[in-house]
Amino acid sequence: MASSLTRYQTSWSGSYQTAWSGTSEFVPRDGTATRQRILDTAERLVIENGYAATTVDQVIAESRTSKGSFFHHFDSKLDLARSLVARYAAADIAHLDDAVARARAATDDPAEQVIAFVRVFEDDADELMSAQSSCLYVSILTERQLADAGTSKQIVEAITAWRTTLSTMLRAALDQRRPGHDIDTDALADHVFVTFEGAFLLCRSTGDNGHMRAQLTVLRQLLESLLA
Amino acid sequence: MASSLTRYQTSWSGSYQTAWSGTSEFVPRDGTATRQRILDTAERLVIENGYAATTVDQVIAESRTSKGSFFHHFDSKLDLARSLVARYAAADIAHLDDAVARARAATDDPAEQVIAFVRVFEDDADELMSAQSSCLYVSILTERQLADAGTSKQIVEAITAWRTTLSTMLRAALDQRRPGHDIDTDALADHVFVTFEGAFLLCRSTGDNGHMRAQLTVLRQLLESLLA
Repeated sequence: MASSLTRYQTSWSGSYQTAWSGTSEFVPRDGTATRQRILDTAERLVIENGYAATTVDQVIAESRTSKGSFFHHFDSKLDLARSLVARYAAADIAHLDDAVARARAATDDPAEQVIAFVRVFEDDADELMSAQSSCLYVSILTERQLADAGTSKQIVEAITAWRTTLSTMLRAALDQRRPGHDIDTDALADHVFVTFEGAFLLCRSTGDNGHMRAQLTVLRQLLESLLA
Repeated sequence: MASSLTRYQTSWSGSYQTAWSGTSEFVPRDGTATRQRILDTAERLVIENGYAATTVDQVIAESRTSKGSFFHHFDSKLDLARSLVARYAAADIAHLDDAVARARAATDDPAEQVIAFVRVFEDDADELMSAQSSCLYVSILTERQLADAGTSKQIVEAITAWRTTLSTMLRAALDQRRPGHDIDTDALADHVFVTFEGAFLLCRSTGDNGHMRAQLTVLRQLLESLLA
């Protein structure tokens, strides 16, 4: 989902800066900076061109490192993919937590919290799309063999975190506004993930990044009518 | 979107069977059957593993054809990709037209037509997911260079066809049920594409094809509350 770390995360929220955020001014001499640079380059290339079309040689060249250094940090291209997904999914979950905290700080009303949550992403949509052209998950999931090799586990963990958190918020809002409703709140929670991923593909196919914001606006309006 | 031709199209609707549908019992001796078999095999492999990870040799072997025959039909792997997308997008637009015709046959009420349209896909979701594991568009769009090489033009044409047709239906429904609304009907129409593509990714990541139907149900319920 929304997780391009180096350029995006800190501009959006500095609250969960970690060793891999790529934004710390303190650069330790233990290879962390090199590892980070390799991951940043690989993430950009894999999102842009796909995993199979990205070679280790290309990552090494574009990250200005060496074969020796690359293989010091990663056992293989597959190991690189796992590390990429791990850090992307961690940032994805951090974004979720951050947006929930902001929605809860904005209002005590469950339905208004749901709307405030979507608005966080809607307001930041243009910034998101200027930082990342698509979602790493799309590239990773496109290759079944890669997904089967353990990378999809971390994606599913992130999806589950979003589902669990949002389903709880949606249930509280629906119980209040539409008692006796027949909405599957897990599926409705998943619809937020679905909207992000589908919108990334719409932006990519049309070359118009404005679709991300437009889709989040539509999602908010649909939820507003549901929770009116 | 929903366009796996050989197994899905005819079971869903036999009304637009064409030379490439793979279902005609009449097999001409001009190479159409071979071309069709190559496209069917390539579509399956590209959806399953991605475009870059699919080799021409693999397509030749799995479609039980020869190098000579392959290059008689396709100039290159890129030419194959263009042909794949062309037939997939054509079927996608045919599905749109078929569902619109069914929705219009079901009711004269604009809002009910919108709901009937989504129900066509909702009812057929399990069949769709048993026929195709994901969407060809996802595989094609994952590789920017491939998309730039002309394949995305046909995807955009299909997206535009869906947007134009659905936006007209949605405008009529909203004008009747919510005069003075502030909904961008083009974006709301795109949300159907977005739901399909995002749901394909959700199914792929979780390994649970039931998400396609669940997401279409959620989309219908959201539209029902908007058009109530």
